[in-house]
Amino acid sequence: MRLPKHIGIIPDGNRRWAVNQGMGKADGYEHGISPGMSLFYMCKELGIEEMSFYGFTVDNTKRPSQQRQAFTKACVEAVETLAKEDASLLVLGNTRSAMFPQELLPYTERHNFGKGGMRINFLVNYSWEWDFGLKEGHIGPMLKSREVSRIDLVIRWGGRRRLSGFLPVQSVYSDFYVVDDYWPDFKRQHVTDALAWYSRQDVTLGG
Amino acid sequence: MRLPKHIGIIPDGNRRWAVNQGMGKADGYEHGISPGMSLFYMCKELGIEEMSFYGFTVDNTKRPSQQRQAFTKACVEAVETLAKEDASLLVLGNTRSAMFPQELLPYTERHNFGKGGMRINFLVNYSWEWDFGLKEGHIGPMLKSREVSRIDLVIRWGGRRRLSGFLPVQSVYSDFYVVDDYWPDFKRQHVTDALAWYSRQDVTLGG
Repeated sequence: MRLPKHIGIIPDGNRRWAVNQGMGKADGYEHGISPGMSLFYMCKELGIEEMSFYGFTVDNTKRPSQQRQAFTKACVEAVETLAKEDASLLVLGNTRSAMFPQELLPYTERHNFGKGGMRINFLVNYSWEWDFGLKEGHIGPMLKSREVSRIDLVIRWGGRRRLSGFLPVQSVYSDFYVVDDYWPDFKRQHVTDALAWYSRQDVTLGG
Repeated sequence: MRLPKHIGIIPDGNRRWAVNQGMGKADGYEHGISPGMSLFYMCKELGIEEMSFYGFTVDNTKRPSQQRQAFTKACVEAVETLAKEDASLLVLGNTRSAMFPQELLPYTERHNFGKGGMRINFLVNYSWEWDFGLKEGHIGPMLKSREVSRIDLVIRWGGRRRLSGFLPVQSVYSDFYVVDDYWPDFKRQHVTDALAWYSRQDVTLGG
């Protein structure tokens, strides 16, 4: 089976899941950490070379502070948990903002943890405008995400069919697979289905 | 019904359609012009404010020359046909290349035709690298597509679930709808279904 080298993950639906469970919206995020680790182990077994996780964005930080604190805490915990594994880890986002959690500053340059291995890019307080250096119609001079390679497959949980500003340059040729289930209801079967679908797509890179 | 202000169109599947009809691959493109005009009239009736059509890309020009000539001819004919309508028309792409058809040079600045009206952006010899001014990891200083507004809904014909380099900045928040039928088999119902689906999506703009 033809596997993607680099998978982008948009783990959406935490709040809708929490509401369905009778919890407050902010309570969903902590239930998103364990699915992320299951996904990491699954992709590691498969030999996937690189993964990019959409943690939270500058846009997201405009939400009520209780939610903001909850998703920030979940991202910090996720990164610190990944740093206990064998991985080559980079946290990518706007660090010049009070919204960037100080605990993650040590991860904003790529480091090998354990034996190294899969490249993981974890987006924290990311925005595509920041990535492009966009200001009053001008862009550049450097793409801040230039460390991140082209993404072959984007999997989005939570049913929405959009990129929501996720790494626009790396996603220009990505195949896009949507899982209707919410992220906390992650199942390995979602990924198995996404990979089977991906393997049937042709690779044209726009050609 | 909540309608998109700006719709992006990826009219894919011309070659696969032609092969299914027992024709040569290159013969599909001329059958893509009339669907485009039907779509234009439909969107005009609905009061859509802006449309962006993916004509052809720099990547596409690497295809066999018979195909290249056929899709170039179809794009020239499409633009010249649109210029007979009421529209505010812009052709956007890399003009500094032999692949850019000279007949379309007069359209590379926006002009009103007839009574003006819907803004139409027609991508000809476009590439996202060109758009970004991308060169050896540097970008900028200006987005060449800065004239084109944010796209609310992208409709892609031909079953593929990818953007293929289509206006990455304008598509960052777009909802993405895929029609499995090939573009020459365009039906108004495809658009009706896409718009009904779009109207049920929430607008978050990443928030």
